[in-house]
Amino acid sequence: MRICWLLLIFTYSCSNMKNNEQEILAVMNQQEADWNNGNIDAFMQGYWQSDSLMFIGKNGIKYGWQTTLDNYKKSYPDKATMGKLEFNVVKLEVSGETAYMLGKWSLIRENDNPNGYFTLYWKKINKKWVIVIDHTS
Amino acid sequence: MRICWLLLIFTYSCSNMKNNEQEILAVMNQQEADWNNGNIDAFMQGYWQSDSLMFIGKNGIKYGWQTTLDNYKKSYPDKATMGKLEFNVVKLEVSGETAYMLGKWSLIRENDNPNGYFTLYWKKINKKWVIVIDHTS
Repeated sequence: MRICWLLLIFTYSCSNMKNNEQEILAVMNQQEADWNNGNIDAFMQGYWQSDSLMFIGKNGIKYGWQTTLDNYKKSYPDKATMGKLEFNVVKLEVSGETAYMLGKWSLIRENDNPNGYFTLYWKKINKKWVIVIDHTS
Repeated sequence: MRICWLLLIFTYSCSNMKNNEQEILAVMNQQEADWNNGNIDAFMQGYWQSDSLMFIGKNGIKYGWQTTLDNYKKSYPDKATMGKLEFNVVKLEVSGETAYMLGKWSLIRENDNPNGYFTLYWKKINKKWVIVIDHTS
């Protein structure tokens, strides 16, 4: 009987972890789609809507959801500069209500093809997975 | 009685988390000290000794402990290029047997002062906290 309980708990934990991974990957897919529709406001829904959100890019740490949105809009003022975004997830690990992701991003544009890596720290906040720290290089 | 048990479990979890944080910070302090002694081999003890270790730097992803060691030695061939290393931890969060860290690194050298950010993904492997993914920019 005890083994049955343990199996049940184990199965539940595994399927729960799988669900979390699927939810996180769904956020990434939605972000890709929103970006490729030229909709940065919708793309930003994948981020924690908080002044404590952190974005580490080529200009160091920037804090806050609004700042991140403003910076994206400044760097990508139109669909041509936005290009076609592709994410490739290299690693995703969920631990409790947090998750770590490593991936590659690339933009396919008419004249160039910038690309790089990102590591994201995710949290499940109000039952929704959001990026709380984005380190992009 | 039930409340007492819950309190006990809560207190144990808190102190355990604190211990983990202290252990991780001790690894960072040791790395700083080893680097500043010009000892890259000792510095590398903070990393997972595995071919699956990942280091994401300006040249993309590099795999493996030995490759990471070789690259450090190539980039920092002597004490003058190694300079004095300082880590400043901005965020450290432990979740189970994993941890996420964001920090700033800087090198104080005679002629320059390179610096940047790192995000580290840690795991407790064989009762020891080690860096399994290092993203440095």
